[in-house]
Amino acid sequence: MDHPGRLKRLREELSRNRLDSLLVTHLPNIRYLSGFSGSAGVLLVVGAGAVFFVDGRYTAQARSEVKGARVVSARQPPLLAVAEWLAKKGRRPRAKGSHVAGVEGESLSVAAQKRLADALPSGFRLRQAPFLVERLRMVKDAAEIECIRKAALLGAGLFDTTLKTIRAGVPENEVAAEMEYAARKAGATAMSFETIIAAGERSALPHGRASDARIPSPGFVVCDFGVILAGYCSDMTRTVWVGKVSDEARQTYEAVRESQQAGLDAIRAGATVGEVDQAARKSLQKSGLARYFTHSTGHGVGLEIHEAPKVAAGQQEVLVPGMVITIEPGVYIPGKWGVRIEDMAVVTEAGCEVLTPTSKEFVAI
Amino acid sequence: MDHPGRLKRLREELSRNRLDSLLVTHLPNIRYLSGFSGSAGVLLVVGAGAVFFVDGRYTAQARSEVKGARVVSARQPPLLAVAEWLAKKGRRPRAKGSHVAGVEGESLSVAAQKRLADALPSGFRLRQAPFLVERLRMVKDAAEIECIRKAALLGAGLFDTTLKTIRAGVPENEVAAEMEYAARKAGATAMSFETIIAAGERSALPHGRASDARIPSPGFVVCDFGVILAGYCSDMTRTVWVGKVSDEARQTYEAVRESQQAGLDAIRAGATVGEVDQAARKSLQKSGLARYFTHSTGHGVGLEIHEAPKVAAGQQEVLVPGMVITIEPGVYIPGKWGVRIEDMAVVTEAGCEVLTPTSKEFVAI
Repeated sequence: MDHPGRLKRLREELSRNRLDSLLVTHLPNIRYLSGFSGSAGVLLVVGAGAVFFVDGRYTAQARSEVKGARVVSARQPPLLAVAEWLAKKGRRPRAKGSHVAGVEGESLSVAAQKRLADALPSGFRLRQAPFLVERLRMVKDAAEIECIRKAALLGAGLFDTTLKTIRAGVPENEVAAEMEYAARKAGATAMSFETIIAAGERSALPHGRASDARIPSPGFVVCDFGVILAGYCSDMTRTVWVGKVSDEARQTYEAVRESQQAGLDAIRAGATVGEVDQAARKSLQKSGLARYFTHSTGHGVGLEIHEAPKVAAGQQEVLVPGMVITIEPGVYIPGKWGVRIEDMAVVTEAGCEVLTPTSKEFVAI
Repeated sequence: MDHPGRLKRLREELSRNRLDSLLVTHLPNIRYLSGFSGSAGVLLVVGAGAVFFVDGRYTAQARSEVKGARVVSARQPPLLAVAEWLAKKGRRPRAKGSHVAGVEGESLSVAAQKRLADALPSGFRLRQAPFLVERLRMVKDAAEIECIRKAALLGAGLFDTTLKTIRAGVPENEVAAEMEYAARKAGATAMSFETIIAAGERSALPHGRASDARIPSPGFVVCDFGVILAGYCSDMTRTVWVGKVSDEARQTYEAVRESQQAGLDAIRAGATVGEVDQAARKSLQKSGLARYFTHSTGHGVGLEIHEAPKVAAGQQEVLVPGMVITIEPGVYIPGKWGVRIEDMAVVTEAGCEVLTPTSKEFVAI
């Protein structure tokens, strides 16, 4: 991974935002910039350098993983070690005013900021920085796309296992258990979120994580799942039918499939995410199902399962080659059923490349 | 669960701390006070009541789960809905000064606090509250202990599966996969933390989560794992030996076992957690291994895998019947091996009840 290049681009952003340094506390941002995959530490990007502060538990891991930053193993909590370091080496000549250190306001807690501020001497100011690293992360480089491609393939492979276990009477949890077992065996680090297996009426819950409920017949089963592989997330949804097929079920499914395809077809460099959302939403109007599509069309995926950009109504973010987003329209009719279909796609100049290889044909079991 | 009783005790704490309200944002605290198990929402405890603010995704779940608080389904983010509610109904008569709303500083982000403060009209002040709910949660009631007991039993049952899979040449990840599969099948919601299967030299890493490494022979295998069941966590560690047994391996194991027993023996109402830590640590001095015991002796367990009290050197917290803690001394000799043994125990008047039923005899495979 090109950690030096990422740090360089971040430094340009710091200077543009008149920040003397940035305290990176959001772990996916730390991983992106330095390679560190552990769960505690603070990366200080300052001047021409970067220093990663870590406590004793993670020192060995940091020394083996971190690229492009010096590793400091601290006896005190990393944030206090940062304060001490800044007090010693981050001072500006008195004439030049205070050192302005950016903090990541969404990941730094109120209590941690207070401890940090209390530990800093005068001559330093903390300022909430905009989403600098998140914006860099939005556009994936070739090495990242390769990682995401592998995660998407591994994730998609699990669906075969799932299809073998789905049948009337089987608890949703059992389907999830078999899937997660297959994921572990295939080398996934973990699932990228709580597996959703939502059958029958439960398929109308957009967040219906697998439960003890048994799969009824007839009915839809929404399967929304993903894995983490080498730090990168996959995310996909397929919906299958169990039992005797009705015309209405098939029509509903096909309407969602068309909507999902319309979303994919709208992706291209230069389009806004709002236009992509609109394309998927408009497609559902033809069948009168648009009002049952109650969430946004998709989201970015990478080191986090949900990251920028949000593919939602009215959003103005412009698609750029290398962005990886999901397209996942759904319709949810409370008390009756729900259908969702989701792929991951990487934005290209002319359109997109779909990373999820799994068929979207209507499947009845 | 006795949600009304918990809210009543919290209200007494608010009044003692001169807070007019508390915005509960830490999800385990919300679950403890209201029963809500979802992953977004804010509980406002104010006056004689409590109001839970949730967005549309979780409204149905909140209405079915929340006890003792009114559920408000908000169109805007829950924290902004709280601000609006407070502005309308939380004002104090002008003569009485500002309404002081406590916030949970460790779980509220700097950015969220700013949005909240910006949305509140004058007449309101935000103040970082001490760990009010965490302190209530430290002492478990009978219903909670029952939940924890069940989680501990389910967790312990997985160790049989693990013993069947551990042998030289098997990847650590495969052992973890079999264990996690068994957990799912047995009805666990999830693992309570990333499963640690650390074999051979890797057993010397206190946080050696399962990897692709194959179990070498001879060597120790540290297995540290837990499940979540009905919201409550289990946590246990067993260490087994693979291959030809050496006297040194057996002696090291027995030293840790004695230390762990010494820790358990020191538990009783009225003792401090520091004394319990000291008992386990002192036991290891006899064998000259104390300097390889590089972490604290244990921690509270409940809705979170790590919660108060910390069972660590010098800590003054006094044990009270109903506290549930782990006792998990270990020795880690870098490049060579590590051993850790961990049980969960509930504090009683006269001592403790160990919740982990699994044998601690030396096992060689």
